[in-house]
Amino acid sequence: MTIRIALDAMGGDKAPAAPIEGAVLALGQHPGCAFTLVGQPEVIATELARIGADPGRFVIHPASEVVGMAEKPSVALRTKKDSSMRVGANLVKSGVADAFVSSGNTGALMATARYVLKTLPGVDRPAIMAVMPSITGQTLMLDVGANVDCSADHLCQFALMGKVYASAVMGLKKPRIGLLNIGEEEIKGNEVVKEAGERLKADGGDGYIGNVEASEIFAGGVDVVVCDGFVGNVTLKTIEGMARMLTHFLKESFGASVWTKLGYLAARPAMTSFRSRVDPRKYNGAILLGLNGIVVKSHGGADPYAFSRAIGVAVDLAANRVNEKIRRDIAAHAGVSAGNGGEQACPG
Amino acid sequence: MTIRIALDAMGGDKAPAAPIEGAVLALGQHPGCAFTLVGQPEVIATELARIGADPGRFVIHPASEVVGMAEKPSVALRTKKDSSMRVGANLVKSGVADAFVSSGNTGALMATARYVLKTLPGVDRPAIMAVMPSITGQTLMLDVGANVDCSADHLCQFALMGKVYASAVMGLKKPRIGLLNIGEEEIKGNEVVKEAGERLKADGGDGYIGNVEASEIFAGGVDVVVCDGFVGNVTLKTIEGMARMLTHFLKESFGASVWTKLGYLAARPAMTSFRSRVDPRKYNGAILLGLNGIVVKSHGGADPYAFSRAIGVAVDLAANRVNEKIRRDIAAHAGVSAGNGGEQACPG
Repeated sequence: MTIRIALDAMGGDKAPAAPIEGAVLALGQHPGCAFTLVGQPEVIATELARIGADPGRFVIHPASEVVGMAEKPSVALRTKKDSSMRVGANLVKSGVADAFVSSGNTGALMATARYVLKTLPGVDRPAIMAVMPSITGQTLMLDVGANVDCSADHLCQFALMGKVYASAVMGLKKPRIGLLNIGEEEIKGNEVVKEAGERLKADGGDGYIGNVEASEIFAGGVDVVVCDGFVGNVTLKTIEGMARMLTHFLKESFGASVWTKLGYLAARPAMTSFRSRVDPRKYNGAILLGLNGIVVKSHGGADPYAFSRAIGVAVDLAANRVNEKIRRDIAAHAGVSAGNGGEQACPG
Repeated sequence: MTIRIALDAMGGDKAPAAPIEGAVLALGQHPGCAFTLVGQPEVIATELARIGADPGRFVIHPASEVVGMAEKPSVALRTKKDSSMRVGANLVKSGVADAFVSSGNTGALMATARYVLKTLPGVDRPAIMAVMPSITGQTLMLDVGANVDCSADHLCQFALMGKVYASAVMGLKKPRIGLLNIGEEEIKGNEVVKEAGERLKADGGDGYIGNVEASEIFAGGVDVVVCDGFVGNVTLKTIEGMARMLTHFLKESFGASVWTKLGYLAARPAMTSFRSRVDPRKYNGAILLGLNGIVVKSHGGADPYAFSRAIGVAVDLAANRVNEKIRRDIAAHAGVSAGNGGEQACPG
């Protein structure tokens, strides 16, 4: 069955060029998928013509409005009912698309997706899950920004959702779940984290490996790191800022003289391999997990390649019926009655 | 006047070698200072002999016990009254030393220092302040681990203490103070951070530049970043873990073949300059700020050079009478009566 992905052609700092060129790239990477470009038809047509893409390979779905990158989520939700974001989410809700990908304003995307799609039964709060590089592969982290104040209950739900994703999409038999905490024995964690840790442990500990420090995200000893959205967002931004500073220092060091520039030429193969391993574009595509439909948030500054990677995340989610599995696991876990007909986003 | 620094010869993963060799290095860097090595005299004497250092250049102050790196702070405090940590803090309290530096267990050091030295008048909670590299120089961050649950009041005190340090030690005329927060407009921060932001703004905003994201720590637009100890510690550990991963990837990339190894030789001058700019040892020495005496926490894994840098931080603090200034500023700010005779740590 063809996986159908709706793409926000108007969202992000580099729209419409980056999402549309990204869609063209994704066509080559995912030949079994159909892509719908959501936005102002004339803008989309002009961009397709500019890059010489065949418009016949895309469905164009009109949306007259655009949510600004700095627009308040509540205002966007209330006043822009024909935004590309809102229309894209509606396509998922109505079953026309299996997933929606947007580089737009995170807060507005979460608010819109939550309003349109609702949460899965038993999920109190959807979370944003990001993929981080690690020495041995990758580490999932959630929540990275949807929920600034979390209860222990919320953290336990994040753990469960992350675990389902790790097994369903990453194919891990027994994902290792860690609770982000700090190192001091005596003062281990704030009250909420302590309570969540006790409950995750009491739950039978299936895959729960206890507290992890932030340094372990990168060390490969944990698959899913659970935290509240404030801490997770700070972690994400720390990585971003540090990467930018290191790139700046590397450029300065290699640009210092003719000799260091020549040195760079000699080191280029190794530096290229290094840069490719930590290329943030490869890890683009944060997942709005816990919604009754698949929505993937691409970085606001994503270029075409990065956007195509976020599309790949959406394709994986749809192909692996992750939401069905989350619903089932949460129902099994909490005794919540599942099986209502609300979900139509994961036909696989 | 000679600045007298007490050093924990027994604390840290590499004790006694690293602190004692670090003390020898510091002798060369700070000729106007006198150093006291606190610990088991025979261990210290053996180590001084091993490295061929002149024992006559140090005072050796006996302490029979050692606090383990994984020991519970409360247990260390209760049972090890003759630990190098406790004795070092006592030397500051009694005025024999102007500052104390230790690579030992952070929790135990904070608990011990707080018990022995007490807090400055008007300071509810001491905080740990770290120095981070930035594109334009360095950024201070506090709290990085002493207080996992903070009130808005505590965050405001951290802001004030960080500001005093930035002006007294770093010589900044108007330090820019930022409150660590996340980007979303609508959901800006958890409740405590929101309240702290409103109060810092209402306080006249002298130097307060509002919310900053974690990426800005490295960008040079802020001098002091204020956060609770949980978030700050996660930030610190994120930096540590990411640095370790990047180093690993760089080694793998340059070690891949004879050609990449040759490339490294050519790139070595630039790579050496790069590595020196981000060398974490240069930034060693976190400050236990708000205590009635100067205590500097060196990284548990510090080598001699790193330890000598932490000693440098202690020397700067003592020379610049930071605690006196914090006391004065907090008193001025809160109307707390200052001027009691409890502080003897900053004779400059």
